[in-house]
Amino acid sequence: MKIDVNSDMGEGFGPYRIGDDEALMNIVSSANIACGFHAGDPLIMDRTVRMAKAKGVGIGAHPGLPDLLGFGRRVIQMDATEIEKHMVYQIGALQAIALNAGHRVTHVSFHAAMGNMVNADPDMADLVARAIAAVDRDLIVFSMPDMEIVRAAQAAGLRVLTMFLADRAYDADANLVSRKLRNSVITSPDAVAKRVQRFLDSGTIETIEGQSIKIEARSILVHSDTPGAVDLAATVRRVIEQGGGTITPATALLA
Amino acid sequence: MKIDVNSDMGEGFGPYRIGDDEALMNIVSSANIACGFHAGDPLIMDRTVRMAKAKGVGIGAHPGLPDLLGFGRRVIQMDATEIEKHMVYQIGALQAIALNAGHRVTHVSFHAAMGNMVNADPDMADLVARAIAAVDRDLIVFSMPDMEIVRAAQAAGLRVLTMFLADRAYDADANLVSRKLRNSVITSPDAVAKRVQRFLDSGTIETIEGQSIKIEARSILVHSDTPGAVDLAATVRRVIEQGGGTITPATALLA
Amino acid sequence: MKIDVNSDMGEGFGPYRIGDDEALMNIVSSANIACGFHAGDPLIMDRTVRMAKAKGVGIGAHPGLPDLLGFGRRVIQMDATEIEKHMVYQIGALQAIALNAGHRVTHVSFHAAMGNMVNADPDMADLVARAIAAVDRDLIVFSMPDMEIVRAAQAAGLRVLTMFLADRAYDADANLVSRKLRNSVITSPDAVAKRVQRFLDSGTIETIEGQSIKIEARSILVHSDTPGAVDLAATVRRVIEQGGGTITPATALLA
Amino acid sequence: MKIDVNSDMGEGFGPYRIGDDEALMNIVSSANIACGFHAGDPLIMDRTVRMAKAKGVGIGAHPGLPDLLGFGRRVIQMDATEIEKHMVYQIGALQAIALNAGHRVTHVSFHAAMGNMVNADPDMADLVARAIAAVDRDLIVFSMPDMEIVRAAQAAGLRVLTMFLADRAYDADANLVSRKLRNSVITSPDAVAKRVQRFLDSGTIETIEGQSIKIEARSILVHSDTPGAVDLAATVRRVIEQGGGTITPATALLA
Repeated sequence: MKIDVNSDMGEGFGPYRIGDDEALMNIVSSANIACGFHAGDPLIMDRTVRMAKAKGVGIGAHPGLPDLLGFGRRVIQMDATEIEKHMVYQIGALQAIALNAGHRVTHVSFHAAMGNMVNADPDMADLVARAIAAVDRDLIVFSMPDMEIVRAAQAAGLRVLTMFLADRAYDADANLVSRKLRNSVITSPDAVAKRVQRFLDSGTIETIEGQSIKIEARSILVHSDTPGAVDLAATVRRVIEQGGGTITPATALLA
Repeated sequence: MKIDVNSDMGEGFGPYRIGDDEALMNIVSSANIACGFHAGDPLIMDRTVRMAKAKGVGIGAHPGLPDLLGFGRRVIQMDATEIEKHMVYQIGALQAIALNAGHRVTHVSFHAAMGNMVNADPDMADLVARAIAAVDRDLIVFSMPDMEIVRAAQAAGLRVLTMFLADRAYDADANLVSRKLRNSVITSPDAVAKRVQRFLDSGTIETIEGQSIKIEARSILVHSDTPGAVDLAATVRRVIEQGGGTITPATALLA
Repeated sequence: MKIDVNSDMGEGFGPYRIGDDEALMNIVSSANIACGFHAGDPLIMDRTVRMAKAKGVGIGAHPGLPDLLGFGRRVIQMDATEIEKHMVYQIGALQAIALNAGHRVTHVSFHAAMGNMVNADPDMADLVARAIAAVDRDLIVFSMPDMEIVRAAQAAGLRVLTMFLADRAYDADANLVSRKLRNSVITSPDAVAKRVQRFLDSGTIETIEGQSIKIEARSILVHSDTPGAVDLAATVRRVIEQGGGTITPATALLA
Repeated sequence: MKIDVNSDMGEGFGPYRIGDDEALMNIVSSANIACGFHAGDPLIMDRTVRMAKAKGVGIGAHPGLPDLLGFGRRVIQMDATEIEKHMVYQIGALQAIALNAGHRVTHVSFHAAMGNMVNADPDMADLVARAIAAVDRDLIVFSMPDMEIVRAAQAAGLRVLTMFLADRAYDADANLVSRKLRNSVITSPDAVAKRVQRFLDSGTIETIEGQSIKIEARSILVHSDTPGAVDLAATVRRVIEQGGGTITPATALLA
């Protein structure tokens, strides 16, 4: 069994840091790198890309809304064309940073509110999917399953890798429970271990209300800003490897 | 005789505009497009790229310091590596915007203080030239002649197109007279016509102190934010065409 | 008859300008000055305050959302406390700029989306009104009539000056017609003259659908970014003065 | 013996944090609060002011250059007037945030490059000192001794409180050793304890080259972003109190 483990990285800005990227880079197979709008700057992007290259970690653009103050987590009234151009800009910026560091961007994974906006609007999803394909047909779209962007990416001829979020609670519709609610973020390594084991065994997860739902996924995400993120990611890795699995970057999984 | 005419464009931000890009796009053969740091945003970049494509105008990245407030005109204490990453980021952002619009970035022309800093530091010039080559070996570097970036770009295997600035006064060393000084910006169409005619006839310009100096250049720049820029650019075009010259994009000139 | 005429000013940023503030400053009695979030910077604020002082024009803070790219016109998901602190910050910034220039901030007038958000949420309106009173009990709140902020300001012990917007179409509920719709912005001096004359004669305006509605207002606003704004403001002034009215700053009106 | 202990606080932005302000607020008598340019935002400023009020800590504006990316540590080419207006804006913003929280700004302490620029230019120092006095004559200027801003503040009729920086190495001219050099930042609690003890005993410090120099100071600063800042500040407090001293806010010291 081969599976990808990914995390959002490079989410600092100037002197600020979020997440222990150095430690996480030893654990994951894919890094979603902030591109300067909700977080990230050219120096941090370059350092993150070089760390990934040194560890054999695949890299993806992690585009977000132009809102450093809100960390890309709050909705801004932007139309589909605005979202499209802001996304394209960020992908290109990371591509050049990667080329200059001898690495290559192979996927795209949306950040927070930008992802929510894209998935709430089928036309926006189609527009951004076609734009990703126009920039590079080989880019893989990372997403939770059953989202508009999955449909749109496939329609645009792009490959998709679906994810299970190990550190976030789900509701019965397989949507994430809002960060504003209690228990929406799972920070216990034991709880994460159990969730991952169950997912590997049966392809199911337990929702916040106790139901069992099916999750189609070939990648597991741990957020780098979840408290104890390095432990949680290490837990995910350990459970996978103890079960005989191999952590494998997206490009190898889909080759 | 074939010669390029270029102008800086897309230097607005959000609701703000500088320069009449629509009018200029009918006159020039190359557009240097701001990339979101000293000016420009993803929507303006996209619109400017699409205008250029519709008019057959070649496009280049016009990277600047991260300083919208100062329009990239004031020096910020940044080292060579910081300048390099900030430049690479901006080139990539425009490349993706261009790809998504069906056009292609074919040159790089530095903006204001970023250009001055690069030309004041041979090591920085070498670093950024190698970074441009790493991103795309086919990018042409636009520059005034006899600059560090010209030497560095050639050393990095890049092609260079040298420029004569039609709307700026020169001193005896062929440097631009500071914008803070009187008569540093030339806004009279007659004066510009005379300068261009002289340059075409003899390859020389008259400095602010009245000397004649030689300028090696295959492109003429008019700044889009000089008062009366459209008239000045039209004047440049008229003088060239009346002399039997043909306005030709950089890629065709250097093919 | 005494009436105030006000306009939004200082809405440039760095090298960018919107509106001909110098010309408008000869026409209006009150200037609503952008405070650095949707537009404005410390230098522009200082220059605008000094122009107002020189012309005897009263000044107010014109706080907006932290969104230069969107010019404060798009809604951002911010809660009441966030809006409150962002507003307080901007008022204080202008107060100090004014003190340093020998002038004094005497009113507050919300910009675009920040105003819409405040008026859509009675609790937010109460919170921001109490905050204005905490910063300076003598500040006058400028608003369209019948808004939540009018009620909240009065409840907080603040004085209110209600406005009629001379260059914007109204619907039958006395709300502004969205800028996205045709004919929402009135740019004809004749049309503006007629509207102002009617308002002065009968206290009524004609809505976009032709009904007559009553508007309680002691100030008339012309936006500085409406095409032909200086002509429109001059028209407003002329109609008032030809009718024997006197243009009078808010502080004198409410004294 | 009464002495002030101060620290820079509120230097986060949006989701980012620098320094453990909650812990430091139990130790210091004065907090220098970032005002949104090099760091800080309206919400963080409000929270920091409220913490200070709850602990009886005096507050000051900590204005910096408009450069979040560089944390206000790099010089930007700005003239005296630009620095003046940027400083005034920030002081006013904090004043209003403080009023709204029931507290009051009583001092000003410059951040990093803004302070260095002011102290390198006597005319700039005079301009900003007069602007501080114009905004509020009662504001106390915090500074290292023998600086241009000390002279200028006194000339402008302002009170000055001079500081000893417990966690930074000095050279023989009583200037700080550059952060870029080894051993410029002192992170050992023992070393800090010894320095403070010596300063309290004899009013002297040992320079990085081993000389003894005299420091006139009535306040001790610990930077909140120095590694182990809370321990260092607690050490400063302990040494003062064990020596029979009382930690006292600036306003009480100079009353």
